Amino acid sequence: MDSCVIPLRHGGLSLIQTTDFFYPLVEDPYMMGRIACANVLSDLYAMGITECDNMLMLLSVSQKMNEKEREVVMPLMMKGFRDAAEEGGTSVTGGQTVMNPWIIVGGVATVVCQPNDFIMPDSAVPGDVLVLTKPLGTQVAVNAHQWMDIPEKWNKIKLVITKEEVEQAYQEAMLNMATLNRTAAALMHKFNAHAATDITGFGIIGHARNLAKQQRNDVAFVIHNLPIIAKMAAISKAGGNLFGLLQGTSSETSGGLLICLPREQAARFCAEMKASRSSSLGQEGGVGDGQQAWIIGIVEKGNRCARIIDKPRIIEVPYRGAVANTQEGNNNNASPPEPTG
Amino acid sequence: MDSCVIPLRHGGLSLIQTTDFFYPLVEDPYMMGRIACANVLSDLYAMGITECDNMLMLLSVSQKMNEKEREVVMPLMMKGFRDAAEEGGTSVTGGQTVMNPWIIVGGVATVVCQPNDFIMPDSAVPGDVLVLTKPLGTQVAVNAHQWMDIPEKWNKIKLVITKEEVEQAYQEAMLNMATLNRTAAALMHKFNAHAATDITGFGIIGHARNLAKQQRNDVAFVIHNLPIIAKMAAISKAGGNLFGLLQGTSSETSGGLLICLPREQAARFCAEMKASRSSSLGQEGGVGDGQQAWIIGIVEKGNRCARIIDKPRIIEVPYRGAVANTQEGNNNNASPPEPTG
Repeated sequence: MDSCVIPLRHGGLSLIQTTDFFYPLVEDPYMMGRIACANVLSDLYAMGITECDNMLMLLSVSQKMNEKEREVVMPLMMKGFRDAAEEGGTSVTGGQTVMNPWIIVGGVATVVCQPNDFIMPDSAVPGDVLVLTKPLGTQVAVNAHQWMDIPEKWNKIKLVITKEEVEQAYQEAMLNMATLNRTAAALMHKFNAHAATDITGFGIIGHARNLAKQQRNDVAFVIHNLPIIAKMAAISKAGGNLFGLLQGTSSETSGGLLICLPREQAARFCAEMKASRSSSLGQEGGVGDGQQAWIIGIVEKGNRCARIIDKPRIIEVPYRGAVANTQEGNNNNASPPEPTG
Repeated sequence: MDSCVIPLRHGGLSLIQTTDFFYPLVEDPYMMGRIACANVLSDLYAMGITECDNMLMLLSVSQKMNEKEREVVMPLMMKGFRDAAEEGGTSVTGGQTVMNPWIIVGGVATVVCQPNDFIMPDSAVPGDVLVLTKPLGTQVAVNAHQWMDIPEKWNKIKLVITKEEVEQAYQEAMLNMATLNRTAAALMHKFNAHAATDITGFGIIGHARNLAKQQRNDVAFVIHNLPIIAKMAAISKAGGNLFGLLQGTSSETSGGLLICLPREQAARFCAEMKASRSSSLGQEGGVGDGQQAWIIGIVEKGNRCARIIDKPRIIEVPYRGAVANTQEGNNNNASPPEPTG
């Protein structure tokens, strides 16, 4: 499971907590702090938990930074982390900071809840559908952004994408990674979700398999559609199937929730995600209002496994920076989405 | 405070948690795991909390280790951590592991408690005495052990200590660091402790000052005695006041608790510490049975500050490896201890 659940000695309460820490993958320290916090909280959100009682921050300062760099970078990263925690309705009360060759940022999220506050991720049934709440492709976008400065890498992908598009995809990925999955967690209760997980380091297929293994019923997850940040599928192909994006193995950071929902609820789930206004980033920047969600597959009878069909539909998810107000390219309807690429 | 205390939404309960992580400082991976766990739990014990509901482990594997080294070292370190958690009556249910240039080991300890389960560290009164539950000098012992292989370092201290003594001091330091402060936490309740903290990176004077600042009454902490692992004071002097050991600034790792106790209770506290049998290390190895504690100072009226008197008594704490059964050099009585060095 994404979080550990510990029965407490006090009246039916459970302690649920999770920890995550990693290394910076975007250049903006403030956004990196937000992403780290969103990534930690995401494990709680995957269990339908919307309130977090406490957060701790885990940091290491790089020895290789000079004093000036430290004074600029670390406070921004901490502010990003704290701002995201505040957006999640919680606060950071402690933590630990050390020196290290590399910067580390992460945290611990803890909540004490009653049984109906969380949804154990084990009750998918044949007939459910699979919904994903953020597009895939963050690893490809972040790497492509670095490759602009490395000619031998850039030469492999420059035929399919412009530098402007890489910059836009990178911004889109950063915005997605910094977005909390909290709205999705709340809607999991409203629409009777049967199980969920968040998509991170093992890619969508890795996490789908983990989730399938935990099910009480004999089910299999079959993924038909892959919503991917626009042009990232093309880059992946041009680079020789980079990171296995189309096989679902490309790592995501602070990815969306993969949720098993009753078929009749899924369309309304997606519609309410879209209608939500969850991120203060969106309020400030004019982007990020509402969150897309896609029906990407089905739950059928099977042997607790997961797979992507042979030729999945690639849903090209447009950069919101460009289409923030018109919401073009909206694919979050309940009928099988059409490929736009 | 050593831990954060969060009021919960459920019936008067509080969430208390703490995190610590650092780098290995002893060569034995199993003992390092135990020390890391003892160090994390110590923040709870300093609040008189004896039960921990959950632990997470934080690890990084060094890139510089080859596969064989990883396969040997990391499981031992994890086993040490888990064994110490088990000795503390808790277990490790999750965590995070990453790759890093350096090894990192640490954890998160969390408990949900009722108001009388913990002792807020703010109620010292003039007339209290200060008790310390482990000797000082771990940093000096660990460094001296490394200096045996560095001639220019070793030459500075070889007049005051033999290599055999350095080895014994190192073993003693390792055993102390791996010992849980759990017995002391339990006895804090029994003997009505008014405040406590654990001694770690800021040295005894740093943590005494932090504790003094948090007091509700106008108090000052005055330290008269410094219990130090035998010969470490001499090494510190020979090296030119190494680490400020005699000024109380030398870092400790997983040090003892510094506890403000009513004067009339302190002797019995020390006696019961000595009578306890708290460590499975002791059960296995024949050492570590019972734990010494020393009355090291007094609480007087003052301005929420702490100091060590001009010429503190140095209590030379003998190596238990050599005197495990005879308990020679026992200084844990309530009358002011005599210097033995």
